[in-house]
Amino acid sequence: MSRIAYVNGAYVHQRAARVHIEDRGFQFADGVYEVCAIRRGVLIDMDLHLERLAWSLDQLRIDVPVSWRALRIILAEMVRRNGAPAFGLLYIQVTRGTAPRNHAFPTGIAPTLVMTVRTLPAPAYAVLQRSVAVITRPDLRWRRPDIKSVSLLPNVLGKQEAMEAGAYEAWLVDDEQRITEGTASNAWIISREGEVITRPADRSILNGITRRVVLRLARRLGLVVSERAFSVAEAKQAREAFFTGTTAFVKPVSRIDDTAIGNGEIGPHTDELLRAYLAHVEAQAANSVPVARR
Amino acid sequence: MSRIAYVNGAYVHQRAARVHIEDRGFQFADGVYEVCAIRRGVLIDMDLHLERLAWSLDQLRIDVPVSWRALRIILAEMVRRNGAPAFGLLYIQVTRGTAPRNHAFPTGIAPTLVMTVRTLPAPAYAVLQRSVAVITRPDLRWRRPDIKSVSLLPNVLGKQEAMEAGAYEAWLVDDEQRITEGTASNAWIISREGEVITRPADRSILNGITRRVVLRLARRLGLVVSERAFSVAEAKQAREAFFTGTTAFVKPVSRIDDTAIGNGEIGPHTDELLRAYLAHVEAQAANSVPVARR
Repeated sequence: MSRIAYVNGAYVHQRAARVHIEDRGFQFADGVYEVCAIRRGVLIDMDLHLERLAWSLDQLRIDVPVSWRALRIILAEMVRRNGAPAFGLLYIQVTRGTAPRNHAFPTGIAPTLVMTVRTLPAPAYAVLQRSVAVITRPDLRWRRPDIKSVSLLPNVLGKQEAMEAGAYEAWLVDDEQRITEGTASNAWIISREGEVITRPADRSILNGITRRVVLRLARRLGLVVSERAFSVAEAKQAREAFFTGTTAFVKPVSRIDDTAIGNGEIGPHTDELLRAYLAHVEAQAANSVPVARR
Repeated sequence: MSRIAYVNGAYVHQRAARVHIEDRGFQFADGVYEVCAIRRGVLIDMDLHLERLAWSLDQLRIDVPVSWRALRIILAEMVRRNGAPAFGLLYIQVTRGTAPRNHAFPTGIAPTLVMTVRTLPAPAYAVLQRSVAVITRPDLRWRRPDIKSVSLLPNVLGKQEAMEAGAYEAWLVDDEQRITEGTASNAWIISREGEVITRPADRSILNGITRRVVLRLARRLGLVVSERAFSVAEAKQAREAFFTGTTAFVKPVSRIDDTAIGNGEIGPHTDELLRAYLAHVEAQAANSVPVARR
């Protein structure tokens, strides 16, 4: 099946999906995005993603491209036209629009709205529970990573460094040697005392949707949860470590730089959280009307 | 005359110039650019711009899209097809290319190469010498602004703040209250002792081509030049202040935030530097073969 993209009002074959070269997303990174998981045709935690999209747009004073009601219809239509995948992701990007190149905000232009859908292999527990290595690298990003902007060049470079080091993700480190987050995920540790620790969602990190759900699930499971910054040294002494993301779910970490975490397998609390998160996704997929059938 | 753009091997009408929505320039700010002034059909200081482009590409490990020889031919052809303007600018952008969205570098793809030309009103001394106001704002950019990447969102926000404050440019300030540079220009002051001061081109600023030429001209004029960081307080006590950029040339500053600089008119040293820079541009335009006639 050929994939269908959405570009400014039109559903088009993805290979033909284009924006103007003076789109401010292309020339200035002047745009925001969201990535939402699809499970059995259902957009998981869609309301939280749309709420954050609204917030990001507001922070950058980019107009909402279409009404929220229209946006939901387009989202559903995109899932449907792409075969309502058993598992996948929907990518939404909004930029300030196209205008002759000039740093300041142009007036009288419409924002650009782009969407794509990608099908992924089903999220099998056997695969999800496999642990991966992370490296630590200085956080080179701009001072507002809490806005989900497409200003992702430092994230790209960090992720590439991770790949080349044989790791899966890079955890970014601030000037006080504390971990902020991963290049495309939020970082978590579980201390020797069993405390579940993740950095508070201030301006130094993106407040991940999976992060928020996992915080809720952890509290519901009766775990001791602390939202506080933690150092690289503290992370390397942790009993367990993991990261959260829209398609990574709850991903166990076996190694931080050269330090092994636990016995290299998923730890008991991480396992509990992964299972709870999987159940959250499956329940939402089972109890919602798949967008394709509304 | 309709404007002609260049996109990956083709000269196209600018209104039809497009890139794919999965171009990494659009989704990740994973690209670099140059802006080169055109005077009487001549690309001013083109070699310096191409040298910096090569350096930016190398820093991000983006392949050179076409040979340097071919690039020069395309540049000349772009100037010619756009009427070899008496004054204008040529914009070049290179991104890592188009690939399914994934942070790490994709393999086996070709970089994207895009160019546009814009005609501008001739650079009249009477207009250039008019001084403008600047504001100061925290430098929110990533840690590698020395790379001329399209990761420009904080620059956009700074410039917009300047406009809304009735100023022309925002000078960005580091954590030690020292000015780094403007959102699209390099910052300079002239002390009460007549010292010409601009921040050294370390990793905290973009090493502007106009900055480099003006440094050379200032030394040739026998001025005392210091490449050193200066504070906001020092700038506000300066006798003269100005900024340099590809199309701004040498732009006098009348006011920094609420502090007037000098008597509000262009100062004598700034005037000397502006005239020297104008002469540099005009001499290069007169002594080079315009690209349109080669």
